[in-house]
Amino acid sequence: MIIVLKPNPDKKQYENLASWLKGIGLKLHESTGVQSTIIGLVGDTSAVDIELIGAMEIVESVKRIQEPYKAANRKFHPVDTVVEVGDIKIGGGHFCTIAGPCSVETEEQICQIARELKAVGAQMLRGGAFKPRTSPYAFQGLGSDGIELLLKAKAETDFPIVTEIMDLSQLPMFDNVDVIQIGARNMQNFQLLKELGKVRKPILLKRGISNTIEEWLMSAEYIMAGGNGNVILCERGIRTFETKTRNTLDLSAIPVVKELSHLPIIIDPSHATGYAKYVEAMSLAAVAAGADGLIIEVHNNPSAAWCDGQQSITSEAFQRLSVKIDALRKSLSTV
Amino acid sequence: MIIVLKPNPDKKQYENLASWLKGIGLKLHESTGVQSTIIGLVGDTSAVDIELIGAMEIVESVKRIQEPYKAANRKFHPVDTVVEVGDIKIGGGHFCTIAGPCSVETEEQICQIARELKAVGAQMLRGGAFKPRTSPYAFQGLGSDGIELLLKAKAETDFPIVTEIMDLSQLPMFDNVDVIQIGARNMQNFQLLKELGKVRKPILLKRGISNTIEEWLMSAEYIMAGGNGNVILCERGIRTFETKTRNTLDLSAIPVVKELSHLPIIIDPSHATGYAKYVEAMSLAAVAAGADGLIIEVHNNPSAAWCDGQQSITSEAFQRLSVKIDALRKSLSTV
Amino acid sequence: MIIVLKPNPDKKQYENLASWLKGIGLKLHESTGVQSTIIGLVGDTSAVDIELIGAMEIVESVKRIQEPYKAANRKFHPVDTVVEVGDIKIGGGHFCTIAGPCSVETEEQICQIARELKAVGAQMLRGGAFKPRTSPYAFQGLGSDGIELLLKAKAETDFPIVTEIMDLSQLPMFDNVDVIQIGARNMQNFQLLKELGKVRKPILLKRGISNTIEEWLMSAEYIMAGGNGNVILCERGIRTFETKTRNTLDLSAIPVVKELSHLPIIIDPSHATGYAKYVEAMSLAAVAAGADGLIIEVHNNPSAAWCDGQQSITSEAFQRLSVKIDALRKSLSTV
Amino acid sequence: MIIVLKPNPDKKQYENLASWLKGIGLKLHESTGVQSTIIGLVGDTSAVDIELIGAMEIVESVKRIQEPYKAANRKFHPVDTVVEVGDIKIGGGHFCTIAGPCSVETEEQICQIARELKAVGAQMLRGGAFKPRTSPYAFQGLGSDGIELLLKAKAETDFPIVTEIMDLSQLPMFDNVDVIQIGARNMQNFQLLKELGKVRKPILLKRGISNTIEEWLMSAEYIMAGGNGNVILCERGIRTFETKTRNTLDLSAIPVVKELSHLPIIIDPSHATGYAKYVEAMSLAAVAAGADGLIIEVHNNPSAAWCDGQQSITSEAFQRLSVKIDALRKSLSTV
Repeated sequence: MIIVLKPNPDKKQYENLASWLKGIGLKLHESTGVQSTIIGLVGDTSAVDIELIGAMEIVESVKRIQEPYKAANRKFHPVDTVVEVGDIKIGGGHFCTIAGPCSVETEEQICQIARELKAVGAQMLRGGAFKPRTSPYAFQGLGSDGIELLLKAKAETDFPIVTEIMDLSQLPMFDNVDVIQIGARNMQNFQLLKELGKVRKPILLKRGISNTIEEWLMSAEYIMAGGNGNVILCERGIRTFETKTRNTLDLSAIPVVKELSHLPIIIDPSHATGYAKYVEAMSLAAVAAGADGLIIEVHNNPSAAWCDGQQSITSEAFQRLSVKIDALRKSLSTV
Repeated sequence: MIIVLKPNPDKKQYENLASWLKGIGLKLHESTGVQSTIIGLVGDTSAVDIELIGAMEIVESVKRIQEPYKAANRKFHPVDTVVEVGDIKIGGGHFCTIAGPCSVETEEQICQIARELKAVGAQMLRGGAFKPRTSPYAFQGLGSDGIELLLKAKAETDFPIVTEIMDLSQLPMFDNVDVIQIGARNMQNFQLLKELGKVRKPILLKRGISNTIEEWLMSAEYIMAGGNGNVILCERGIRTFETKTRNTLDLSAIPVVKELSHLPIIIDPSHATGYAKYVEAMSLAAVAAGADGLIIEVHNNPSAAWCDGQQSITSEAFQRLSVKIDALRKSLSTV
Repeated sequence: MIIVLKPNPDKKQYENLASWLKGIGLKLHESTGVQSTIIGLVGDTSAVDIELIGAMEIVESVKRIQEPYKAANRKFHPVDTVVEVGDIKIGGGHFCTIAGPCSVETEEQICQIARELKAVGAQMLRGGAFKPRTSPYAFQGLGSDGIELLLKAKAETDFPIVTEIMDLSQLPMFDNVDVIQIGARNMQNFQLLKELGKVRKPILLKRGISNTIEEWLMSAEYIMAGGNGNVILCERGIRTFETKTRNTLDLSAIPVVKELSHLPIIIDPSHATGYAKYVEAMSLAAVAAGADGLIIEVHNNPSAAWCDGQQSITSEAFQRLSVKIDALRKSLSTV
Repeated sequence: MIIVLKPNPDKKQYENLASWLKGIGLKLHESTGVQSTIIGLVGDTSAVDIELIGAMEIVESVKRIQEPYKAANRKFHPVDTVVEVGDIKIGGGHFCTIAGPCSVETEEQICQIARELKAVGAQMLRGGAFKPRTSPYAFQGLGSDGIELLLKAKAETDFPIVTEIMDLSQLPMFDNVDVIQIGARNMQNFQLLKELGKVRKPILLKRGISNTIEEWLMSAEYIMAGGNGNVILCERGIRTFETKTRNTLDLSAIPVVKELSHLPIIIDPSHATGYAKYVEAMSLAAVAAGADGLIIEVHNNPSAAWCDGQQSITSEAFQRLSVKIDALRKSLSTV
């Protein structure tokens, strides 16, 4: 961390600052120039509150050199984390596809989709029981009944299931869920993150639509700081001015996350683009960029889906895509 | 609502769509052109799921004409809502200033600030007990102790108090809080919104940093649909590419909200800009644009604040600002 | 400027870097920590190419402390620049309103608007002769004929005129234009900026819709570096995700620019919001925030305007607004 | 195009609007509902000025159904455009790599890079002679001398060359340049676009950092409307709030452009990400998403580049990448 002092800082205030910083175990390196004094802090600054220092009268600006996250930081954990869900692995070279409908609608629907997906080689089943919807008048999901239906589909097909939690009060219903998803709107619901840090299940942490990669890693840090290291990051598009796609899928996040963190990262091309017609191109792009997996909306009858049908593909389309993904992964692994 | 069909739509599918729409009480007006058929829907479309229609095979695109919110819509409630907090009023020509520290730190701190603010004419006291922080290692607020300290300051100064709820589980602690704040990160925490719709206290609903005005009004609609019409909207900056201010304060939201809704709107220049030095200019601008109030961070010793001190002004600065606000409001009311 | 070196930098490369930096007159202060070495550069770094240093193998990151602009920088010119256009002044406490139609359409139109604006107290006349339009099929302005018509209106009303240049080749036609406007799309047309640095007329420099305040000041610097210090900055909205207004008017830019630079800053509420109905609120807000002037679209018949009529107000509305602006400015100057 | 009228529109004004629309060859389909009247316009609306209609007193809103571009529109030209540069082809299944340094520095530098790139299979040589730089104090390129050096490299290696024009006045120097590049900052320099519509050389049109895909296609339309159909689109990142990459590479633009237009689209991963370390992942992603080519910064000595060295890769890295691209393209073409 670097602190730039204002010209002619009050001596007393500076001594207070310096003794406080030394007190928390940091070493100070001072460079005094004509216009300003620069202090380099050496040591573990991840717990230093940068805004607190920035507010001091004698301080012109503060800049971090070290990243503010530790548990999620590749510098301290160079080896890729591999998250295990039963005998399925994600990360460290293990690729995983998660597929299923936006919403669980009926037993028939979810079980049929599950059977179809099993036949075409998907590895986990997703489906929404609690649905965050912009309008209070839109379908809000089947709730606990939806989770029951997912468990029936799991019983029939042996798929691990992934579904979203919207509020802490729902946690008891997730006992038999395999992977708990935190949606984009809850990425900075810090109470929820803390509580899921105490759980030992894998957490699928979606990036908020207007959150930076650093904020996303800090949210992973909340979960990991609580003792749960099984975090799977999921990029699902960020909000920009472009309107031809629902959001703008930020695939650069893949190599950036791989550099900064050891956690696996998967891509959701369905929510990011909002249209089934763009899912194949963006899935292949994600794989080529090094993603550890994909989460794709698949519906047995997209035109009749209760929610987000516009972005769902059929299981036939999913199968064709899977063949291409395999070919692509094989081609890149052999050069 | 306008539905544009693809060229040569399947007749059977179109009949299904039409009979469903008629079944929910809408009238259809059809215009058939050379390239496409356009259907105008007449009636109350606020409960129609636009994504559901957009996903249908025969549909090219769907566009809303009517707003998707009703309770918050000025068209159906032309008169300004006036929210009452004890004998303080906000909206409909009533202007209100809310002031206080970012975080409650100690009894001495909050009570001293409260006394100072009382002396200079603030109308409500704000202070954070539960603090949403990006880092799990940063100060997270005093929690329920913080609320206790706020209530002591209330007892001493008779200020109504405003403080943020971060999770539904905290609701019981808010019994003696006068206005419950929903922070920007929780603007689309729909479970929380629904639950606060059952409460009868005024809700201060901050705009999410990447939420549109329409999404914000839809979140107000969640609260109002539950029966609580006491919603105060608060603009606090949106996320853009500009870095000289923490966020970009969107003051255009004031006339836009006034046109679309009858709810009061107040401005938070402290969080929006992130710097005390810009608070006065942005406060005056907000008042001139027609805001119904301001929420401003005031600290008795900004350099020593535990959180966001950089953006806090002193009570002396608050007093100088109040004098200017009064002069400005008076000048505009007499021309 | 601060340079952070990678751990264990190559000694030879570091010596080369150090001797180069010393060669251009900078002093180096080195702090060596456990993880990294930090070098503080003392001296005039405005001409140092930050990307060049950042690309070096031994460098982890580079951060500027000093601003990269000099001529536009308030630190080196603490006194407000006052731009003079005939006997009209802008900046340093002098407020100026510029009004007129988006496009010059006919002699009758521009002269009538000019007469109306003269009667209601506007200080300069604006009108577009060359119009940047997204579509090649839209009206592109009257070109040189438009400038001739503006000069007729000037002859009749004695208004100084402000009009936009779109390309260097048009410069000869601007001999009798009083203020040359650079549009948002040309803010980083560096050839144009350089050439206008050689001119001695005032330049109205609009901020690009996706340019930061620092980039905007750097564009002013291009003009000033050429010897033309008569730059008026004009904020006209930035591109964000919000769609209720055409762009998002960034009024925080006013206090930020006032802090960083001595140049005058005016606001264009018409293009920023895109709607006549929001012009009054945003104009008053701009004045309250400390703007040095306004540029407002006024048309004698907004419904029949050839371009951007949606955002034009009438001269009656302009007059009512002017009365409010005067009252507001008076109220703030006396407290 | 759909026009929504305000409730109870003035009859006379509506007749005027209707007769004008009919006069330009459009048919009107009217649907009158309880709250509003909707008019569907049938016919070629690409030349209709949407803002002009939106400004009319009786009009509530106007929405386009048809795209505003014709020459660039795939609907009217279903077959992919193949741009030919000598015997190199781009588009319609033909893939092309363009490589070279950000700036031309010396004869030795550009000729050495050209020889290296020839040896590793690049197809065109890029290099900047005129450099748009944010700061007037940064290196601005060698100008016409830079073009001379590019032509020497062309003479030696037989590479077609691609270089950027910054201003119309430079056009005569581009006689022997093979592909003229329009940079992101000039994407809406309409004078330049019009003039390059008269040229018969291929134009590489970069997307502006804050321009939508529709605006980009409209800029292509400017060139094509002038008679030059040889337009290559190039995505190079858009401006967002994320700071870990210089811009956010919008790879979704590939399938979107392919759907809307017949023009070829290539990707610039170097400028988009700003870092050499992310170039490989983003290049492979672009190819997997269906890009028609890549333009990549390659320098013989990135650490010593005069400009943007941080984002340049070596020719060795380029060769390794080319092998992967070939494997990837082959794998996707055979499934």
